[in-house]
Amino acid sequence: MNKLHALYNFLDLAGTFVFAISGALAAKQRGLDLFGICAVAFTVACGGGIIRDLCIGAVPPAGLTDWQYLAAAIVATGMTVGLYSFVQRLNQPVLLFDALGLSLFAVTGAEKTLSCVHNAEMAVLLGITTAVGGGVLRDILLNRIPVILEKEIYASAALIGALIVVAGNYLKLLSSDWISIIALVVCFGIRLLALNFLWNLPVYPNHKKKPGL
Amino acid sequence: MNKLHALYNFLDLAGTFVFAISGALAAKQRGLDLFGICAVAFTVACGGGIIRDLCIGAVPPAGLTDWQYLAAAIVATGMTVGLYSFVQRLNQPVLLFDALGLSLFAVTGAEKTLSCVHNAEMAVLLGITTAVGGGVLRDILLNRIPVILEKEIYASAALIGALIVVAGNYLKLLSSDWISIIALVVCFGIRLLALNFLWNLPVYPNHKKKPGL
Amino acid sequence: MNKLHALYNFLDLAGTFVFAISGALAAKQRGLDLFGICAVAFTVACGGGIIRDLCIGAVPPAGLTDWQYLAAAIVATGMTVGLYSFVQRLNQPVLLFDALGLSLFAVTGAEKTLSCVHNAEMAVLLGITTAVGGGVLRDILLNRIPVILEKEIYASAALIGALIVVAGNYLKLLSSDWISIIALVVCFGIRLLALNFLWNLPVYPNHKKKPGL
Repeated sequence: MNKLHALYNFLDLAGTFVFAISGALAAKQRGLDLFGICAVAFTVACGGGIIRDLCIGAVPPAGLTDWQYLAAAIVATGMTVGLYSFVQRLNQPVLLFDALGLSLFAVTGAEKTLSCVHNAEMAVLLGITTAVGGGVLRDILLNRIPVILEKEIYASAALIGALIVVAGNYLKLLSSDWISIIALVVCFGIRLLALNFLWNLPVYPNHKKKPGL
Repeated sequence: MNKLHALYNFLDLAGTFVFAISGALAAKQRGLDLFGICAVAFTVACGGGIIRDLCIGAVPPAGLTDWQYLAAAIVATGMTVGLYSFVQRLNQPVLLFDALGLSLFAVTGAEKTLSCVHNAEMAVLLGITTAVGGGVLRDILLNRIPVILEKEIYASAALIGALIVVAGNYLKLLSSDWISIIALVVCFGIRLLALNFLWNLPVYPNHKKKPGL
Repeated sequence: MNKLHALYNFLDLAGTFVFAISGALAAKQRGLDLFGICAVAFTVACGGGIIRDLCIGAVPPAGLTDWQYLAAAIVATGMTVGLYSFVQRLNQPVLLFDALGLSLFAVTGAEKTLSCVHNAEMAVLLGITTAVGGGVLRDILLNRIPVILEKEIYASAALIGALIVVAGNYLKLLSSDWISIIALVVCFGIRLLALNFLWNLPVYPNHKKKPGL
C-alpha cells in the first residue's frame, strides 16, 4: 500500500495545485494585483483544510505549516500571470483535476475528522468543508455569492464521498483503504457525470415576484 | 429546576429552528439551490455558536457534533422549500421566535464563555457573537452588508442581555438561574419593543456628499 | 530595554486605535448604525490578531480578553461619530499611524507565531495575517473586494517585515530586539515610500476583453 500512499500524495498535491490555479484565474479576472492573486490562490487551496483543522483542534493547521501548499499557490500564481493564454486553454484538464481535488479533499477531510473526533456528523460536515471551503472563501473575497451555493452538483458530490467514508467506517465491511478508494471513485464519478450532463440541484422560483409587479 | 432545564432545551431548539428558517428563506429568495439553502440555514443556526466555541477553545464545537442542530436546519430547509407560501405567512411567529432565539443565544453564549474563560469582556463579546454571528455569516454568504450592522435594535438587545449575565455573575446578588431569566426577559423585551416601535440606533449622515457635488 | 517595551506598548495601542479609526470611518461612510460602526472598528483593530491566535492555538485570543483593544475601538467610534469633520482632516496622521500599526502588527504577529509554533512559513503567513486580516474582514463586512488584494504596497510591506523577523531568528546574527527594530523600520519605510510615490504591485490586463466586444 506504499505505492497507494505515494499516489495519494501526488493526487493531493495535484488537487491543491489545480484549486490554486482556479483561485488565481478568478482573482486575475477580477483585476487583483500580484499579491491578491497569490493570496486568493492560497486561500482556495488551503482554506477548507484550515477551517477543518481549527474545528477539530488540529492546531497549527497543516495548510499553514507544510511549505508544499504555499509553493503550489506560488507556482500557480506564476503560471497564471506568466502563461495566461496557456492556462486558459487548460479548461478541460483543470476541470478534471478540480474534480479529483474535490474528491480527495472530501475523503481525506472526512477521514482526518473521524480519526481526531470520532463523530459521524462532524466527519460529513467537515469533509464537505475541506472540499468546498476554499472555493467559498474565494467567492467571499471576490465579493460574489459562492457559486457552489447556487448551482451544479459539486458540494453534493463531496457530501456523498464523505458519507461513504463515514458509513464504511461504521460498518467495517471493508478495509479503510478500499473504503477510501470507493468514496473517491463515486465522488469523482458523480462530479464528472454532473459536468458532462450539466446536472444541477433544484432551484426554486421566487413566488413573491409575480408578472406585472 | 429540571423543568426549567427542559424548557431551556425546548427554547434553544425552537430558536435554532427559527434561525434556520430565516436563513433558508433568505437563501431561497436569493435563488440558491437546495444545497445552498440548507447550508445557509445551518450557518445561521450554528455559525455564531461555532465561532464562540473556537474562541474559547471548546473544540469540537457543539454546533458540529449535536445532530439536533443539523436536523433543525434540514427540516427548516424542507419546510421552506415545500411549504413556501405557508412559511412566508409565518412572519409574526418567526419574528417572535427569532427574538427568543436571540435572547437565548446571547444569554447562553455569555454563560458558556464565563464558565470556560472567566473573562467578563469576552463573555459580553461572545454572547453577542453567539446571538448575531450566524446572521452576519448569512449576509456575507448572500453578498450583502450584514443587516444587524445597518439598523434595528438587535445586536444591542443581545449586548444588554449578555451584560446582565456578566454583571449578575460578578455581583452574585441572585442565583444564576434568576440572573439568566432576568437577562432573557430584558433582552426579549427590548427586542419586541424595538420591533413594535421600529426603534433604530442612530445612523450618521455622510457630510462628504453635499448638494450639487 | 524597559523603555523599549513601554514604547512598544504605546505604539501597539496607537496602531490599534488608528486601525479602529479607519474601520469606523469606512463603516460610517457606508451608512452603518452606531453598533455597526463600533463592530467594524473593533474588527479592524483585533480581527487579524484573533485569526492568528486561533491558528496558533493561543486560546482565548488576546484581542478578546484585553479591555484596552475594546476601549480603543469604542473611543475611535465616539471620535468618528462626534468629531467627524475633525477626524476626516486627520488623513495624514492616520496614514502615518496606519503604516506604524501595519509594521508593528506584522512584526509582533510573526514573533508571537515563532515563539508558539517554531515554523518559519507559518510565522510569515500569520505575520501578514495579523497586519492585514482586520482590514480584509472590514471589506468583507462592508461588501467589497478587500482593497489590499487590489492595489498598493501594503500587504507586501508586511510580508517583508515578517520575512526579516523570521530570517533574523534563524541566522541569529543580532539580538531579537535589534531584529524587531530593523524589521519595523524596513516595513514602515517601504509603506511610506509606497504611499509617497504611489507604488502599486502589477495588475494584469484581462485578455478576454477585446476592443469591440
